[in-house]
Amino acid sequence: MITLGSMALDSLETPFGKAENALGGSATYASTAASLFAKPGIVSVVGKDFPQEHMDFLQERGIDLAGVEKAEGNTFYWKGKYGFDINVAETLDVQLGVVEGFKPKVPEEYKDAEYLFLGNFEPAVQKSVLEQMNKRPKLVVSDTMNFYIDKDPEAVKEMVKLSDIALMNDGEARQLFGTTNLMKAAREILKLDSELAIIKKGEHGAIFMTKDSFFSAPGYPLENVVDPTGAGDSFAGTLTGYLAKTGDLGEENIRKALIYASSVASYNAEGFSLDRLKDISQEDIDKRFNEFKKIVDF
Amino acid sequence: MITLGSMALDSLETPFGKAENALGGSATYASTAASLFAKPGIVSVVGKDFPQEHMDFLQERGIDLAGVEKAEGNTFYWKGKYGFDINVAETLDVQLGVVEGFKPKVPEEYKDAEYLFLGNFEPAVQKSVLEQMNKRPKLVVSDTMNFYIDKDPEAVKEMVKLSDIALMNDGEARQLFGTTNLMKAAREILKLDSELAIIKKGEHGAIFMTKDSFFSAPGYPLENVVDPTGAGDSFAGTLTGYLAKTGDLGEENIRKALIYASSVASYNAEGFSLDRLKDISQEDIDKRFNEFKKIVDF
Repeated sequence: MITLGSMALDSLETPFGKAENALGGSATYASTAASLFAKPGIVSVVGKDFPQEHMDFLQERGIDLAGVEKAEGNTFYWKGKYGFDINVAETLDVQLGVVEGFKPKVPEEYKDAEYLFLGNFEPAVQKSVLEQMNKRPKLVVSDTMNFYIDKDPEAVKEMVKLSDIALMNDGEARQLFGTTNLMKAAREILKLDSELAIIKKGEHGAIFMTKDSFFSAPGYPLENVVDPTGAGDSFAGTLTGYLAKTGDLGEENIRKALIYASSVASYNAEGFSLDRLKDISQEDIDKRFNEFKKIVDF
Repeated sequence: MITLGSMALDSLETPFGKAENALGGSATYASTAASLFAKPGIVSVVGKDFPQEHMDFLQERGIDLAGVEKAEGNTFYWKGKYGFDINVAETLDVQLGVVEGFKPKVPEEYKDAEYLFLGNFEPAVQKSVLEQMNKRPKLVVSDTMNFYIDKDPEAVKEMVKLSDIALMNDGEARQLFGTTNLMKAAREILKLDSELAIIKKGEHGAIFMTKDSFFSAPGYPLENVVDPTGAGDSFAGTLTGYLAKTGDLGEENIRKALIYASSVASYNAEGFSLDRLKDISQEDIDKRFNEFKKIVDF
């Protein structure tokens, strides 16, 4: 499994505390989460200032860093604050650093990977990674954000077409397809050559629609969200990692994958940065998976 | 089962059409929905202008109208419009009419009812109906709205205390308890002498929390919401009616009741006014209940 995404240093403040230059970035969250199930490799870029300890941590998780370019300049930096509504981040500062103009180069040994997660980058950058693969992977999962939809919705729609699973959250789906009805938005995703549509709904869970079925994954009842940064990325990383591990892309298994993804994402929000992700075991994940069974039982 | 609530004439416009002076009101929706399961009686007030055909319709559903006062003046009138986001109503006109200063009088034959739904009225009016009962009913379900929370949050909290199930939607719960975290809001409901907390989340379904359990009812995947008026009232009416019919207030049965409530509420949104509610059969409701099983299965 290969993950394209940012590697970042985050400074953030929530009602529960603050962290300076903590490890962040979509590839970091996604691959750390995925490493609970699979052996991910990262395609990304860091600056000369990126601490070696973070590289060591990722390597200890069994994550391949052959595709991480070390460039002149500073690592992508994000400074943000979560206030009264902890689900809403206020961006205080962004410094693109080495991410600006980044042209990913996929290492030879990655090019036959069957599972690919294209994390948060411009659609053109995501596309270039897909095009460098020797053959079309068995599963391509992509992510987007409102910033890219504002900028070029058609490019985002093209990525939806090129992906098997184009992840987006409810706000992004409503924006991209110009409808307030999420079911209609999911239908629009299906029209873009997609066999399945998954829309994340934050605290409300996620929906998963195919041509003739519908699944609703509940949100996990978290009473103490400490830091929601990376929730979407750990969700996406777990989803892809679990599917890579099991090799089963049937609807039933995708439903399971979504519950695992929700479990890991909910743990992630319980601590700052990757603190909680670093901690949790397969046993913890299974425990929460089983709790989800009880949560929807009637 | 007894239902306190408004009986109204609604003029409304949605992207799918318009209706003038259609039958509306919380007691109307709630008791029509409840009549699928139980034999409800209404406590309400109408004006001299209230069409006899609506009274006939309710009576044909087996609804007892002994508690409907016919007063001098006009029936409560609401004019609203649903636009691009069909979940958000814009109120264009409200005429309280006979509802202003309404002092409900509970008929003798209602006073031993074991199931009571206190629909949308000022907390003082809700409380006066509860106080007129001969004995504390086995189940008291109440509803509120943001208007009453703005006006007197302490009175609303007192009604939460007096009810077994105090229904509110997510926005109302966040407002009443000053938190953005719905789990924390549900915990606050439990602190008010309540054994259970139910929070409705519109398209995202509903949650149901007790001291040591948590249930998430998914939203039904409606692609065509024609008119969402009365969704909360048909939900509440079904919930109370189903519990009245089964007489079982155990957690497992309440979970079932919530799914039935979601089923009926989703049908209601498929037509104008009470058009769809009038139509549906027990078979339709069971069909949707079984669909919900598939929607959460993993």
